Amino acid sequence: MQMFTSTSLVRWNGSDVRTEMDELVAEEPLEIRVGGRAISVTMRTPDHDAELAAGFLLSEGVVRRRQDIRRIHSCARANNLVNVVLDPLVPVGFEKLTRHVFASSSCGLCGKATIKAIRAQFEPLGDSAAPHISASVIASMPDVMRKSQTTFDRTGGVHAAALFDEEGRLLVVREDIGRHNAVDKVLGHALLNDMLPLSRHLLIVSGRSSFEIVQKALAGRIPIVAAVSAPSSLAVEFAKENGQTLIGFLRDRRMNVYSGHARVGYA
Amino acid sequence: MQMFTSTSLVRWNGSDVRTEMDELVAEEPLEIRVGGRAISVTMRTPDHDAELAAGFLLSEGVVRRRQDIRRIHSCARANNLVNVVLDPLVPVGFEKLTRHVFASSSCGLCGKATIKAIRAQFEPLGDSAAPHISASVIASMPDVMRKSQTTFDRTGGVHAAALFDEEGRLLVVREDIGRHNAVDKVLGHALLNDMLPLSRHLLIVSGRSSFEIVQKALAGRIPIVAAVSAPSSLAVEFAKENGQTLIGFLRDRRMNVYSGHARVGYA
Repeated sequence: MQMFTSTSLVRWNGSDVRTEMDELVAEEPLEIRVGGRAISVTMRTPDHDAELAAGFLLSEGVVRRRQDIRRIHSCARANNLVNVVLDPLVPVGFEKLTRHVFASSSCGLCGKATIKAIRAQFEPLGDSAAPHISASVIASMPDVMRKSQTTFDRTGGVHAAALFDEEGRLLVVREDIGRHNAVDKVLGHALLNDMLPLSRHLLIVSGRSSFEIVQKALAGRIPIVAAVSAPSSLAVEFAKENGQTLIGFLRDRRMNVYSGHARVGYA
Repeated sequence: MQMFTSTSLVRWNGSDVRTEMDELVAEEPLEIRVGGRAISVTMRTPDHDAELAAGFLLSEGVVRRRQDIRRIHSCARANNLVNVVLDPLVPVGFEKLTRHVFASSSCGLCGKATIKAIRAQFEPLGDSAAPHISASVIASMPDVMRKSQTTFDRTGGVHAAALFDEEGRLLVVREDIGRHNAVDKVLGHALLNDMLPLSRHLLIVSGRSSFEIVQKALAGRIPIVAAVSAPSSLAVEFAKENGQTLIGFLRDRRMNVYSGHARVGYA
């Protein structure tokens, strides 16, 4: 298992464009089972999975001490599955625990099955060149979003997501302690105001972009997702699979473009 | 509903100590119902809840257009509940959707009931003065953690959590794309190595501290939680209720202390 993966990207520094290689933090689903029964699928960086499973069960109040766990083993055929065998005297409230299971993981062979189900939920985008937007217009968007963030200035602890049109106009900005909630608020605004599909729009997010952010953008048919910080491996993989343009490190009038290059103009 | 709340805190700048007021981003649970049935409880900043619910249902593939939603209304007695009434022709797979419901929300009156159940899961800490650690020792910890972060240097996209003892020694550091996973890995390491309870230890996290981080620390009986960035309102509230010391903006040899002041020495 690797904590990072390599990717090629296009780096733009305000004037020059270069194709380079860089490293992404790995994001992959892990299915945690207790006694063979799926209780959770979490997106994680593959590393110390046994510790992750043990800590998760401690946080959930299932185990309290070392002796509560007999052993933890990984699936021989899959890196994305751990099974925890508890001491038979430890009571497990499966009904409460499975609140964390998402999608149909309990019937899958391993986490991969789950993620395939999520991936297949929405159709990939069609035309991979529309809309076409200049890098300098995109580069101006974080500052515009930042000026509309009223809560960040007061607390320093809040994420933002914003929707822009292809002319570079800000349509809506929403803030939340959770980045995924900020994106849901933006999407909900668009839905309730009958703006869907957002097929000529850009989603700008503060912080990083994970699988979940790019997947939500696809639900709204948004072709371009740009984040102020780094993307995860799965965000890039998902964007490529679905014909989305994914931009990272969008700040100081620079950016990295990881996929969907035909939509960005550098002239 | 407020997107921020006020709090008193102790600010230490490396030499002077002052008590001040500051603002925190609000974090509160929102229970989303569809046709009266609970499908999700999410921690969010209270603002544009109807949009959040609509965007969540779009991301989940339940609704696709404006007409799929008849109306969205809030509970008259509770700010932390929204109910979405769908067009009767929209099919809802409740079994798949309720994967997001955590704790016993489906039987609660509103989100508040859920959060009470989570809060009551672990006993509060006892002695509110032990261990006693100097602010300057705590201030040195983020740099020590940072030097042990191997993945961050390569990708810039990963969170870290670290466990220190009361002498300021680093015991373990773990990285993950999710801050809560990094904390679970640290707790799991402690559990599997029979180090529990961590009643004389400190948990240091990169980024912000939310309810979930402080709750996980309590599961491991950790009395001091310190984050490099801002805490949420609920993190501070939870730490106060449970006798934990919560520190934020721990960087550049400065810090804000929000609760559990007796454990920090400024001499």
